[in-house]
Amino acid sequence: MTLIDGKSTSLQIQDEIKSLVEVRTKRGQKKPHLAAIIVGDNPASRAYVGHKIKACERVGFESTLIELSESVREEQLLSEVEALNNNDSIDGFIVQLPLPDHIDDQKVLEAVRPEKDVDGFHPVNAGNLSLGLPGFQPATPAGIMELLKRYKIETSGKHAVIIGRSAIVGTPMTLLLSRNANPGNCTVTLCHSRTQNLEEITRSADILIAAIGKPHFVTKSMIKPGAVIIDVGINRIPDASRKSGNRLTGDVDFEGAAEVAGSITPVPGGVGPMTIAMLLRNTLQAADQRA
Amino acid sequence: MTLIDGKSTSLQIQDEIKSLVEVRTKRGQKKPHLAAIIVGDNPASRAYVGHKIKACERVGFESTLIELSESVREEQLLSEVEALNNNDSIDGFIVQLPLPDHIDDQKVLEAVRPEKDVDGFHPVNAGNLSLGLPGFQPATPAGIMELLKRYKIETSGKHAVIIGRSAIVGTPMTLLLSRNANPGNCTVTLCHSRTQNLEEITRSADILIAAIGKPHFVTKSMIKPGAVIIDVGINRIPDASRKSGNRLTGDVDFEGAAEVAGSITPVPGGVGPMTIAMLLRNTLQAADQRA
Repeated sequence: MTLIDGKSTSLQIQDEIKSLVEVRTKRGQKKPHLAAIIVGDNPASRAYVGHKIKACERVGFESTLIELSESVREEQLLSEVEALNNNDSIDGFIVQLPLPDHIDDQKVLEAVRPEKDVDGFHPVNAGNLSLGLPGFQPATPAGIMELLKRYKIETSGKHAVIIGRSAIVGTPMTLLLSRNANPGNCTVTLCHSRTQNLEEITRSADILIAAIGKPHFVTKSMIKPGAVIIDVGINRIPDASRKSGNRLTGDVDFEGAAEVAGSITPVPGGVGPMTIAMLLRNTLQAADQRA
Repeated sequence: MTLIDGKSTSLQIQDEIKSLVEVRTKRGQKKPHLAAIIVGDNPASRAYVGHKIKACERVGFESTLIELSESVREEQLLSEVEALNNNDSIDGFIVQLPLPDHIDDQKVLEAVRPEKDVDGFHPVNAGNLSLGLPGFQPATPAGIMELLKRYKIETSGKHAVIIGRSAIVGTPMTLLLSRNANPGNCTVTLCHSRTQNLEEITRSADILIAAIGKPHFVTKSMIKPGAVIIDVGINRIPDASRKSGNRLTGDVDFEGAAEVAGSITPVPGGVGPMTIAMLLRNTLQAADQRA
């Protein structure tokens, strides 16, 4: 059984990006510059953004954090987005989700200029992905593709089963795995809450991707021996043995699954760390396209 | 066995659109106006565009046909597109494909303003579809969804198998059938030329959609008894008994399939006629959004 180590792969990609930034600097090009807007004091959001800013430092990017209060008006937020769109020193930026209820997420995401949309959430980038055109890919599915590639997992002609049809994971994952590319060329089955006979379907999967947000939903009996298991879930569950009283766990029952899987991503340390590497890669791509 | 009659369904939708146009006219609103650009003398393209213009007349739309010679320069074509984008009397327009080899199709499609892109080919519309947002849907998948709806075919929890991963049929079909909507909520398997054990997969399909462009590819043995069979193929094959020496046929061996299927679309007269109805519906939607 192979443990697919997202943490070390992410660090390796960050090293590669750092080298590319050094090459750029030697050529006299400016450092890639990522900005992030965060609204309010959600601790998880603050932690995520903090990791992103820290990763920028690690690879030699400039970064800018724009902190807005929970009560910011939508038009104020939109004018911050517009300022970043027009700021020539910024190569790419993200608006950390979730936003407060009084703000229309979709309106804000669509205000980001597609050329700076390094989260890949704008309809133009979602459309480019669907049409097989170049563009920014959302970080989680791009990170999974990168893991499959770096672990030399054969995908062509394999049956990939995806559980969860979200717009940022399950759906773009379907598009990336089914396209005529390497990795890619999978037969893909997209499953969700309405799927019947789920266990029968997952047992036919050569590659099984769980992205539903339910702790330990995928159990040993649902897995074909030798399958590749990708766990996208990040669920916080109670754990009295921890000082915090809880711990992070995935959508897959790791211990059981590890007994039959050919390879598997852990949680934490699997897909999660890859998202930061992909955000940095998108930002470098944005900087290169603007140069 | 139910024959899914796309021809009569298309005419029924056209009657409904005609009534809506009359209501608009009584309100003092202008007629919806569709324009089409055609380049060169490809007889099939000319025939398709001719049907679209004729359908406009039938439902009370205005229509404009712009005919450009095979040798038109790309920039000339782009300036025609720009003129239609800026022409306030035009609600929506299409650029008939294929374009000559010296023209970059994608560049032309992306030049169409998304609000007038009634073919649904612009990345913004493809992205909206992928993200589950409102927008113009491409005519063929939209027409299939409409057939499923009007024939009251239960889709929720059913297994839909799609053969063919094209950007204009197989891929958007996957998105529409898997989304949380009615029709929709299918478990969807997307198959293609690299798929292994295709016959085993198709035999598990409650709804089987063939969109590969290979005459009679889907045979009786590939079909689960009672399944819904949607044939997107339009293939011209030799037929000595016809005056023309050929006839149109689908991707499904109709005679064999009809023996086991629960319902099936014929070719011609199935999915094909629905595309025109969906183009008209998109144009009406464009006119309503502009009003």
